[in-house]
Amino acid sequence: MSLTPDQPSKSGAMTPGSIATELSKLDLPAPSGLKLTLPTTNPKSPLSGDAGPNSALSGNSLFSPVGTDDTGDISGPEPEALTVARRKARSESVSEQLSTTLSEMKLPQPERIFGPNDEQNVEGSEKGKQGVSPEDWDKVKLDDEVPEAVKEPRRMTHSRHTSRADAAVPRTPTIPETPEPSSSSHTVAKEQKVTPFDVEGEVDAEGKDLGIDYDKLTKRFGATLISQELLDRFERLTGEKPHPLLRRGTFYSHRDFNMILDRYEKGQPFYLYTGRGPSSDSMHMGHLIPFMFTAYLQRVFNVPLVIQVTDDEKYLLERDIKKQAELMKKIKGKKPLDLLRHYKKMGQDNIRDIIACGFIPEKTFIFSDLANVGGAFYENVVLMAKTVTQSQSRNVFGFTDSDNIGMFHFAAVQATPSFSNSFPQIFGTRDDIPALIPCAIDQDPYFLLTRDAADKLHYKKPALLHSKFLPALQGAGTKMSASKENTAIFMTDDAKKIAKKIKSHAFSGGGASQELHKQFGGNPDVDIAYQYLGFFEESDEKMEKLAKEYRAGTLSTSEMKAACIEKLQEVVAEFQKNRAEVTDEKLAYFQNSTRKIDPRPKPKEEAVEAAPAA
Amino acid sequence: MSLTPDQPSKSGAMTPGSIATELSKLDLPAPSGLKLTLPTTNPKSPLSGDAGPNSALSGNSLFSPVGTDDTGDISGPEPEALTVARRKARSESVSEQLSTTLSEMKLPQPERIFGPNDEQNVEGSEKGKQGVSPEDWDKVKLDDEVPEAVKEPRRMTHSRHTSRADAAVPRTPTIPETPEPSSSSHTVAKEQKVTPFDVEGEVDAEGKDLGIDYDKLTKRFGATLISQELLDRFERLTGEKPHPLLRRGTFYSHRDFNMILDRYEKGQPFYLYTGRGPSSDSMHMGHLIPFMFTAYLQRVFNVPLVIQVTDDEKYLLERDIKKQAELMKKIKGKKPLDLLRHYKKMGQDNIRDIIACGFIPEKTFIFSDLANVGGAFYENVVLMAKTVTQSQSRNVFGFTDSDNIGMFHFAAVQATPSFSNSFPQIFGTRDDIPALIPCAIDQDPYFLLTRDAADKLHYKKPALLHSKFLPALQGAGTKMSASKENTAIFMTDDAKKIAKKIKSHAFSGGGASQELHKQFGGNPDVDIAYQYLGFFEESDEKMEKLAKEYRAGTLSTSEMKAACIEKLQEVVAEFQKNRAEVTDEKLAYFQNSTRKIDPRPKPKEEAVEAAPAA
Repeated sequence: MSLTPDQPSKSGAMTPGSIATELSKLDLPAPSGLKLTLPTTNPKSPLSGDAGPNSALSGNSLFSPVGTDDTGDISGPEPEALTVARRKARSESVSEQLSTTLSEMKLPQPERIFGPNDEQNVEGSEKGKQGVSPEDWDKVKLDDEVPEAVKEPRRMTHSRHTSRADAAVPRTPTIPETPEPSSSSHTVAKEQKVTPFDVEGEVDAEGKDLGIDYDKLTKRFGATLISQELLDRFERLTGEKPHPLLRRGTFYSHRDFNMILDRYEKGQPFYLYTGRGPSSDSMHMGHLIPFMFTAYLQRVFNVPLVIQVTDDEKYLLERDIKKQAELMKKIKGKKPLDLLRHYKKMGQDNIRDIIACGFIPEKTFIFSDLANVGGAFYENVVLMAKTVTQSQSRNVFGFTDSDNIGMFHFAAVQATPSFSNSFPQIFGTRDDIPALIPCAIDQDPYFLLTRDAADKLHYKKPALLHSKFLPALQGAGTKMSASKENTAIFMTDDAKKIAKKIKSHAFSGGGASQELHKQFGGNPDVDIAYQYLGFFEESDEKMEKLAKEYRAGTLSTSEMKAACIEKLQEVVAEFQKNRAEVTDEKLAYFQNSTRKIDPRPKPKEEAVEAAPAA
Repeated sequence: MSLTPDQPSKSGAMTPGSIATELSKLDLPAPSGLKLTLPTTNPKSPLSGDAGPNSALSGNSLFSPVGTDDTGDISGPEPEALTVARRKARSESVSEQLSTTLSEMKLPQPERIFGPNDEQNVEGSEKGKQGVSPEDWDKVKLDDEVPEAVKEPRRMTHSRHTSRADAAVPRTPTIPETPEPSSSSHTVAKEQKVTPFDVEGEVDAEGKDLGIDYDKLTKRFGATLISQELLDRFERLTGEKPHPLLRRGTFYSHRDFNMILDRYEKGQPFYLYTGRGPSSDSMHMGHLIPFMFTAYLQRVFNVPLVIQVTDDEKYLLERDIKKQAELMKKIKGKKPLDLLRHYKKMGQDNIRDIIACGFIPEKTFIFSDLANVGGAFYENVVLMAKTVTQSQSRNVFGFTDSDNIGMFHFAAVQATPSFSNSFPQIFGTRDDIPALIPCAIDQDPYFLLTRDAADKLHYKKPALLHSKFLPALQGAGTKMSASKENTAIFMTDDAKKIAKKIKSHAFSGGGASQELHKQFGGNPDVDIAYQYLGFFEESDEKMEKLAKEYRAGTLSTSEMKAACIEKLQEVVAEFQKNRAEVTDEKLAYFQNSTRKIDPRPKPKEEAVEAAPAA
């Protein structure tokens, strides 16, 4: 912490430093066992009363096959170990609690710390000493335990909002020689900032980008790192080797994944939920890897999957007026509805790509918000919306007063697929079936709110699997961008183009010259070809052999790239074959909201047979 | 204006007085011809480009009978007189413009004008001199032209949110001798405050309730008083005498009603829209009079009518946790969904009452938000939500940071029925058919936002007819309350009960004794029996005769009450007969969202025949 603490100014106006001091005196509640006591949610009120998972719903069951007998003791007691673990688990309420505490403090906004006539506001004074400028405010660390999203309630750059598990900037150091940053080995001048709309890595005192510290992020968000024990249990129970993305650490953190495995073990139902904000450009590998991973999970677990395509979000959350105006011009739109409909159409194109990732058709429901919000789904949107205050939405997502009410409200729409009774065609009126949500770590704030709300609504909390951000071809510090052809492999690229991109653009961890490489070896940890190969290559032996020989300098950069190219060509070719088979009928089938889906878990043997024909 | 202007304090901190002074220096734009230049709505952008009412929609028309040939020259030029009138009309943008201006001023919140260490904050100093206390803030008149809703962005008591055109407190003086207040004859110490959630009349320096100044309110909201010329035109065009509520001034102000009459004259389509937040208690006369009036308008115009039942709002906007907890207990609910479903059920009961008001079944669509939000409707909710900023929603409705995001967002849901393409079963994809909205004046802020949004969305602005608040039996200063039996005539009251209520509880404008009454006469203007009779009695001659004889003292209070009782018994009996005929089938018929409704205006002759059978 390189911050120079500020003294409170004589007039009593608060400076960032004095606020930090006050905060430290606050005796913030310890993360575990924290009780939420917001005025709108009196825990003593019948609203959050004694209704447990056993309570029957009064409405008619729209779907009868779901029965306790069929699905095991769904509402029975949880295993003791899990109960203990839960009790110890850090409560997500901490974010809300802190948010409330912060809002009650009536902190002055940065630009208002000193009024126009305030003596302390000496123009031209060296910045960083008085702590008065917005830049200095940026450097203030209020408290190490405050989640980023809560700590930084300022306007954020709206740099990305394309996918739940999108491929964005890894922000690992741009210099290959530098090892991956760890939370202890650096002096961090500017903390990383991760919200669903903006991802910024740590910056040191010299302004150098230190990248995302994922361990710290997980700790801050109150999630849990995925342990080898957990992966072993997964393999033991499912009989399947963990997916390369899991065992090589791209999906690296979770919430309640052990609870999902408990349910799997006991034959109790659960389901998968993921989503995407539609994009106009072609989808690239970074977009689709999370869906491929989700398809793998569905095959392994043989459970229902819902995929939300947030065409409404795309329209509501685009703050770049110029960009939207250009798009309007391009589509020859005359009124906002035309633009909204364009996003809806984009969503349909994206759904074709998503379908090509190979889900179990009978168990998968893909939906556009614009087409599907309504009925039981809208009921849950309303219930969810009431659990989130305006200041929480602002703090967690970084919204401002000039942002539109749809942006503030959208959290309720993204949360709703986490509740099983939002999908009567699958779960009838059952609201006690939890979702497992694979998503990029930056989407976690949505589900922090959702998990807190689940308690209030007497619904099941969703479990999560968090991924890191996938690196662009250029490696750390460059963004995988759908509008920048050479930053990513597109799912429409042919074999030749893939080869060319990897050869010309994939950041190499090899030596500066062939001679130096042979002498000192290369670094596979920052080598994009090696990384990309690792997303798909099943053989750990092959990966280890490649890494070992690369480090030794006996495997050349071009040999490493060749191995990568071969694998990517294979993956993309299979995708393209699947994509060509997505007919209009198939598109409609996946989106048919009246199609009944059997929510019952199946024994392993049947699951294998149910693997996708495509 | 009895305000003592404050001097800016020495430290430069702003006091309410100094803010008022600064505001007065602001050179606020004149109401008419005001141009809106919000950053999110660049008028040069294609979003608000050259698409006029002539632009064809690209989507498929779901409803073919609507054609230019059938309906007259719908998209032709407006009459010149109207164009001129419109140009002169006060722009609603003024509220938004002022809201923006105010928010850009970074006004300190009342409680933060003086910091804890500020020298000016002398404890125990006489209030009213320094202008530092919230109480003093209440008295600040920023600018006479600032709409109440914008001027008072503080938390408001959540005193009423039951119906668009509900019967609330008239707040006319409680002393019969006092003539009705006018804006010039009183020294107003506390301005009236009217939002959809709170209605408070003016208060004078002695704390006396001066009631609502409707003329001032209309001026503030930028609406237009209904003139005799307008009523004459209505009668000339429709061949129908204006409804008693219209010609006796309960519906007293409007927006663009002349435009609706133009369309009627030319045979161009338009429709009616009104709504209600469901209530658990029995509906009383105050609830139903607006629907009876709407039914009259539908019979006169023979146009489609949509009625929104905002069960979602009822759940989202109830800030009284205790009240909701008690209701939860009463219904034996176990989770929030049970409460939401209860509101939905209440809505269904209310719809039965609404149906009994006598609409044209073939032309009427009644819907619950929870059942109907989705599809084309949700598209418009999203479009609408993007046009409203968080600070606008806060300022217009008085929300605070601790209010939930659903409350902020709800404005978009209430606005959406104003756009014709929200109802594809009636209007197909046509978005150029305006709505006429009869509502109480306190609902106007919703439609201020809607009318501004209509411009941005290239939709037709809705027109409005505003009513005053209907008086309780006790007269001015008492609230007509569904939970207070004797404040209102309930639609379930029998003839005997009606007679008893009027005799025992109706506030009388008669003399203190029979002798005094004979000597000095009574005042029909504050006599509740006379007022209630006037809502329904068709004969102006009879009303004039009664008033004249009452003033002369030749008509006694009990005779006046008898006349009222007779009429109310007649009205309620007819309602009860209709209500008994509302079968489950009828209930479903009105709410069937797939039932096609012919939007074409019909010639006068047919309209008369289409009058409701019930």
